[in-house]
Amino acid sequence: MKAVRLHAYHQQPTIDEVAEPAVTGPMDVVVRVGGAGVCRTDLHIILGQWDEAMSPTLPYTIGHENAGWVHEVGSAVTNVAVGDTVILHPTPTCGLCRACRAGQDMHCVASTFPGLDGTDGGMAEYLLTSARACIKLDPSTQPKDVAALADAGITAYHAVRKAVPLLHPGTTAVVIGAGGLGHIGVQCLAALTATNIVVVDRNPDALKLAEALGANQTVVADGRHVDTVTELTDGAGADVVFDFVAEEGAESDGWAMTRPGGSYYVIGYGGELHVPTLDVISTERNVVGNIVGTYNELAELMVLAQAGKVTLHTKTYPLDAAQEALHDLDAGEVRGRAILVP
Amino acid sequence: MKAVRLHAYHQQPTIDEVAEPAVTGPMDVVVRVGGAGVCRTDLHIILGQWDEAMSPTLPYTIGHENAGWVHEVGSAVTNVAVGDTVILHPTPTCGLCRACRAGQDMHCVASTFPGLDGTDGGMAEYLLTSARACIKLDPSTQPKDVAALADAGITAYHAVRKAVPLLHPGTTAVVIGAGGLGHIGVQCLAALTATNIVVVDRNPDALKLAEALGANQTVVADGRHVDTVTELTDGAGADVVFDFVAEEGAESDGWAMTRPGGSYYVIGYGGELHVPTLDVISTERNVVGNIVGTYNELAELMVLAQAGKVTLHTKTYPLDAAQEALHDLDAGEVRGRAILVP
Amino acid sequence: MKAVRLHAYHQQPTIDEVAEPAVTGPMDVVVRVGGAGVCRTDLHIILGQWDEAMSPTLPYTIGHENAGWVHEVGSAVTNVAVGDTVILHPTPTCGLCRACRAGQDMHCVASTFPGLDGTDGGMAEYLLTSARACIKLDPSTQPKDVAALADAGITAYHAVRKAVPLLHPGTTAVVIGAGGLGHIGVQCLAALTATNIVVVDRNPDALKLAEALGANQTVVADGRHVDTVTELTDGAGADVVFDFVAEEGAESDGWAMTRPGGSYYVIGYGGELHVPTLDVISTERNVVGNIVGTYNELAELMVLAQAGKVTLHTKTYPLDAAQEALHDLDAGEVRGRAILVP
Amino acid sequence: MKAVRLHAYHQQPTIDEVAEPAVTGPMDVVVRVGGAGVCRTDLHIILGQWDEAMSPTLPYTIGHENAGWVHEVGSAVTNVAVGDTVILHPTPTCGLCRACRAGQDMHCVASTFPGLDGTDGGMAEYLLTSARACIKLDPSTQPKDVAALADAGITAYHAVRKAVPLLHPGTTAVVIGAGGLGHIGVQCLAALTATNIVVVDRNPDALKLAEALGANQTVVADGRHVDTVTELTDGAGADVVFDFVAEEGAESDGWAMTRPGGSYYVIGYGGELHVPTLDVISTERNVVGNIVGTYNELAELMVLAQAGKVTLHTKTYPLDAAQEALHDLDAGEVRGRAILVP
Repeated sequence: MKAVRLHAYHQQPTIDEVAEPAVTGPMDVVVRVGGAGVCRTDLHIILGQWDEAMSPTLPYTIGHENAGWVHEVGSAVTNVAVGDTVILHPTPTCGLCRACRAGQDMHCVASTFPGLDGTDGGMAEYLLTSARACIKLDPSTQPKDVAALADAGITAYHAVRKAVPLLHPGTTAVVIGAGGLGHIGVQCLAALTATNIVVVDRNPDALKLAEALGANQTVVADGRHVDTVTELTDGAGADVVFDFVAEEGAESDGWAMTRPGGSYYVIGYGGELHVPTLDVISTERNVVGNIVGTYNELAELMVLAQAGKVTLHTKTYPLDAAQEALHDLDAGEVRGRAILVP
Repeated sequence: MKAVRLHAYHQQPTIDEVAEPAVTGPMDVVVRVGGAGVCRTDLHIILGQWDEAMSPTLPYTIGHENAGWVHEVGSAVTNVAVGDTVILHPTPTCGLCRACRAGQDMHCVASTFPGLDGTDGGMAEYLLTSARACIKLDPSTQPKDVAALADAGITAYHAVRKAVPLLHPGTTAVVIGAGGLGHIGVQCLAALTATNIVVVDRNPDALKLAEALGANQTVVADGRHVDTVTELTDGAGADVVFDFVAEEGAESDGWAMTRPGGSYYVIGYGGELHVPTLDVISTERNVVGNIVGTYNELAELMVLAQAGKVTLHTKTYPLDAAQEALHDLDAGEVRGRAILVP
Repeated sequence: MKAVRLHAYHQQPTIDEVAEPAVTGPMDVVVRVGGAGVCRTDLHIILGQWDEAMSPTLPYTIGHENAGWVHEVGSAVTNVAVGDTVILHPTPTCGLCRACRAGQDMHCVASTFPGLDGTDGGMAEYLLTSARACIKLDPSTQPKDVAALADAGITAYHAVRKAVPLLHPGTTAVVIGAGGLGHIGVQCLAALTATNIVVVDRNPDALKLAEALGANQTVVADGRHVDTVTELTDGAGADVVFDFVAEEGAESDGWAMTRPGGSYYVIGYGGELHVPTLDVISTERNVVGNIVGTYNELAELMVLAQAGKVTLHTKTYPLDAAQEALHDLDAGEVRGRAILVP
Repeated sequence: MKAVRLHAYHQQPTIDEVAEPAVTGPMDVVVRVGGAGVCRTDLHIILGQWDEAMSPTLPYTIGHENAGWVHEVGSAVTNVAVGDTVILHPTPTCGLCRACRAGQDMHCVASTFPGLDGTDGGMAEYLLTSARACIKLDPSTQPKDVAALADAGITAYHAVRKAVPLLHPGTTAVVIGAGGLGHIGVQCLAALTATNIVVVDRNPDALKLAEALGANQTVVADGRHVDTVTELTDGAGADVVFDFVAEEGAESDGWAMTRPGGSYYVIGYGGELHVPTLDVISTERNVVGNIVGTYNELAELMVLAQAGKVTLHTKTYPLDAAQEALHDLDAGEVRGRAILVP
C-alpha cells in the first residue's frame, strides 16, 4: 500500500509502497483510512522538533488525526466489527494502568502515539491501531469530514470542557488564536456554556469566522489588545483565557488578560512563561496545562459534530498530494484543515 | 493607647500613644487585642516592599494577625457581643459584592487589610474591625495562642483544602519549607488527607519538627533534593507540590518535582517562574496561585486547632518589645511564631 | 398605599389601604414595586398549606416574586441607590451566618421570606427589603418583564446549574412538567449544556412551547411515557430527571426514568417517594433536593435574560385585579406567568 | 479441586470436587485463592434473594471477596505475572464501554460478578478472573488478611470517598451500623477527613470497637437515638449520614438525622424509603446511592491497609468448614469477618 513516510529530518516525506499492516494481538484493529488530517505538528516533526521528546526511529509513516473503516479485528475485540465507520483516539492505551483505570487516557504509562513516536501513523491506506482507540460512528459519517476532530478537535474540546465549571453566565472567556484549534474551541464554548466569548487574533478574516461560529466579541491583536480585553471586562480581565498560540508574546498577553482568581489555559506552545511568584499569589491566578483529551471526550465531541454544533472547514487532497498539502499548510494557504484522502 | 506605628520605610516602627478607636458604622467592632502575630510580611512592609501594591499612607499601625476580646459593637452587629473571645479574618469585607456573595472573601472588591494597606492594624491595645471579620471562639481560648492562625494559618489551610480532591491515598504531596506557614501546612495535610507527606527544607531541625507534626518523609534541600523527591515517587514526581518558599530557586525546584498531570501550588513569593509552554502542555501540569483563605476556612481551621490537630509554637513578647520581636524574627531567632501580647 | 393582604385562610385576599413601609435599619431598602409575580404557591398560601411550615401572623401582604425601583435606602447601603432598577432575591439574608458566608443564601439561619412567612410581600405599591436582596439591573429593564424570574426562575435555574457537571454531550435530561418553572428550566438547559432535552407533559400545547424553547424531544404523559423515555434512551433512562411536578405519580415516574448512576432532581412537591433501599444501592441512583437559588444565581439568570436566552410569557394585571389574577391562575387560564403591575 | 457450590436455594452449599479453571482468553487470569470472605450477601444468595436480580444458573461456586496468588495468565496480560500476590476487584469489567473508559467500573455494561451471577466465585482452591480485576500487592501481604477488603471494604471506602468534599472540619458524619462494613467506614472517615464521627448501633460492644477505630461520639440505638443525634448537632442534624443498615427503620432514622442541605448515603439495603417531596425540596436534602467502588478505589484502600490505617478483625476457617462459617455468621457468632482459607 501507499504511505507517507519520513526518512530524514528537514526532508520532505515521500510516498512509499509498503506492506499493509495486519492484526497480530488480540486487541489489534486495522483501519482502512478514510481521512488523515495534516497538522502543524507534522511540520514540526519534519523539522525534528519532536525528536527529543519522542525519539522515533526513522523512517516511519506520519499522520496522527485519523478516521476510516474497520478492516480487520483481533480475537478479543468486541466494541467494533469489520465495516464499522470509526474515528481514532490518537493514543492507543494499555487499559490497565492507574491512569487508564481513571479514564485519563493521556496519562497512560504505556500508550503509543502513531504518527509521532515512530509507530506508523495514518497517512496511508491502512493503519494498525487498537480496539481501545476506536470510536464507532454513525455509518453515514464521512471519515474525511471528521478526521481533524481526532487530534485538533479533542484537544480544544478537552480544554473547554475542563473549564466549564468556571464559565457560568456573566463570566468572560478569551480565546487567543482563531485558527485550526481555536475555531473549534469557540464552537465548543458556545455549545457547552453561556459565557461571553471574546476572540483575539491578528487576522481579521479569522475573527469574522469566529463571529460566525459563536464569538460575542472580537479583538484584533494590534498591540493594544491586552488593554482592549481589560476594557471589555470592566478592568478586571477574563475569567478564563484559552491560549491556542502560547508563543511570540501571546503567553504573556494571555496571563495579563487573566483576572484575579482566574485561570490561564495553555494549549498552544513554543513560548516561555515568565511570571513572578508574587504575581501568582497576590492575585490567586492559575496556569492550567492542557494536552489531548480522553476517549470519552472524543466520543462527546462526535455527539456535538453529529448535532451540527461543531463543524470543520476542510480542504481535501489525495494521498499522493501529501507534499502539496504540507506545503500549503506551511505557506498559510489552507483555510480550516487539510485532509488527505487515500 | 499604645500602638506600633510605621512612620517611614527602612526605619523601625515606634511605640506611640494614640487615641483608642471607636465604633462609628453599624457593623463596626472594636476588639481589645489579646495577641498580634509578628510576620515576615511585617519585615517586608518596613522595607517598603508592599508600598506599590498597597499604597498605604504613613504613619499607620502594623499587625495583621490578630485575636482578642470584643470591646464595643455597632448597632447592627448580631454575630458577636461585648466580651466574646474572637479571632479576626485579616480582610474585613463588604458582604455585598459578587465575590463576597460567593464566599470568596479574598476577592472582595471593597475589603480593607488592616496593618497592611494603611488601615490601622493589631499591634496595639485596641483594633477597629468589622462584624464580618469576627469569628467567635470558645471563651477558654487564649488569643495569644491562636493569633498566628489568623493569617499564616489560614493561608496554609486554604492551599491544603483546595488540594484535598487531588490527594487521595497513594498520592504524594511535597511541602517545600517547614517554617511558619509550612509547619501548619503539614498538620493540615495530616488532618485532612491520607496522602504521603514529603517535606523539603534546608534546616534539619525544621525537618525534625515536620516529622513530629505528621511528615512521612523528609528531604534536606542539599542541591540534589529534586532528584531525591523524584526517586521517592518512582520517578514520577509529586501529585501536588506546596511551595511555601517560592524564591531563591525553590520555584524551579517545585515545578520540577511536580508529576505529569500534577499541580504546583505557590504560596510563598519572591522568585520568578520560567516555564516553557511546551513543558506545560506536554505534561499537563498546573501552577495554582494561593492567597489568604475565606472566613469559613478560618472557622474550620479553628475547629482543627481546638481539637488539637493544628498547634503552634509561639514566643510571646510584650507590646513594648515589638522592636525586639521584629529583630529576633529577622535574625532567625524565633522558633515558631513571635506574638505580641498588649 | 394599596396592598394585597391575606386576612384568613380559605378567603380571598383583599386590596387594603396600608401605610407605606419606611427604612429603619442601616441595610434596609424600600422598593417601589414594578411587577409582582402571581405564583401557584400563593394559591397554596390562601389554602393554609404553608401555615405549619412558616407560621405567619395574619393579616399580611403576599407576593414573593418582585422587581421594581429603589425608593429609599438605609445608611449603610452601598450596592444600590435611589432610582436603580432592581430584581429582588426572595429571601433577605443575614450575611453573617456560616451559610451566608459560603454563598448558600437558602440555608441562611436568619433570613425572612416576605410574602410567605408573614413579612409583608410585594403585591403592593412599595416593599421593604434589604440591600442583600437587591440585584441592580440595566435601567432599560422593565420590572414587570422579569419579576417572575425572582422565584420561579431562580428555582429552575438553581436545579439546572447544579446538574451541569452531569450533563455533558451524549447525556439525556428529562424535564417533567413544561409549565411555569419547567419552561424556564428547558431554556436554562439549552443555554448551559449540550445535553439532549426530553420534555414530558400531559398538555400537547405545553410541549409545543417546550420545543420552541429548546426541547429536542417531547413525550405526552399518556400513561406509557416512562416506557417511551426508556426507549428514547436505549433502555437505560435519563442521566438527570428534573421533576417540576413531583406529585400525582410524577414522583414515581421520575425515579423510574432515571438511569443507573443517574440523579432524580426534585423541584415540584406534593407527592411522596416510595423507594426500596435495594433499588437505591443496586443502581447507585440519587435523589437530589432543590430549593430556591442563591443571590449570585439570580444575578447569573439575569445575564441570560438580558441576552435573550431565557424569556418569559407573561400576562399583566393591575394591582386592583389581584383577585382576578389569582382566579385565572387557579382556573388554568394563564399562559406563562401572571404579573401584577401596581 | 474443592469448591463451595450452591445447588439449590434454601439448602446449604456443599464442598464439591470440580475441575480447576484454566485460562482461555488473552486477558484471563487464574488465581490460587488465599482467602475468601464470607459475607451476609452469601446468606441472602442461599435464600434465593439475589435470584431475580442476577438470574444465576445453579449449581455454581459462591465467594465474591477474594485474594490470592496469580497461578496462570493469558497471552495479553501485562499487569501481573505468575506468583504475584493479588486482591481482586469483585467485578471483572470489559474495559471498552463508556463507563469503563470513565473509570466507573461498577457501571460497566458487560461485567461479570463471580460468586453472585452464576460465574464461579472464590470459595475454592482456584478462581478464574481477568487481568482487569487484579491489583498487585506487596508480596509480604497475606491474602487472608485483606480478602474482606475486596467487597465489604471497597463498598465502605467508595461511599466515604464520595463524601469527602462534604466533610470539612466542623461538619458531622453519622455512621449507622458499626458492623462489617460500618467499622471499615469509620476507619476510612478517620483517615480521609477531620469530620466529627458519630456512630449509632444497637450493640454497645460494636460502639466500643467503633471508638477504638476513630469514632468521636457513639450513640446506642435505643429508640431516642434520632433525638440524641439532633442534640449532638445543635439541633440541625448531620451533614452526611452513612446508613450501613437501611432496613428495619434505620432508613427513616437516617433521613431524619440529615440536616438541611445534607446528604443521606444509602449503603445497606432491605428497607424502603418513604419521603414526601415537600420534605426533599424544603430542606434541599439528598439521598445518595452507593454500590461497590472502582478498581482505583480498591487500590487506594490497599494503601490505607498497608499503612495500618484500615484494619480488619477476621476469623479464619478452612475451606472444608465453609458451612460452619456460614452458620456462625448467620448466628451472629463472628466478630469482624469470617474468612475461608483453602
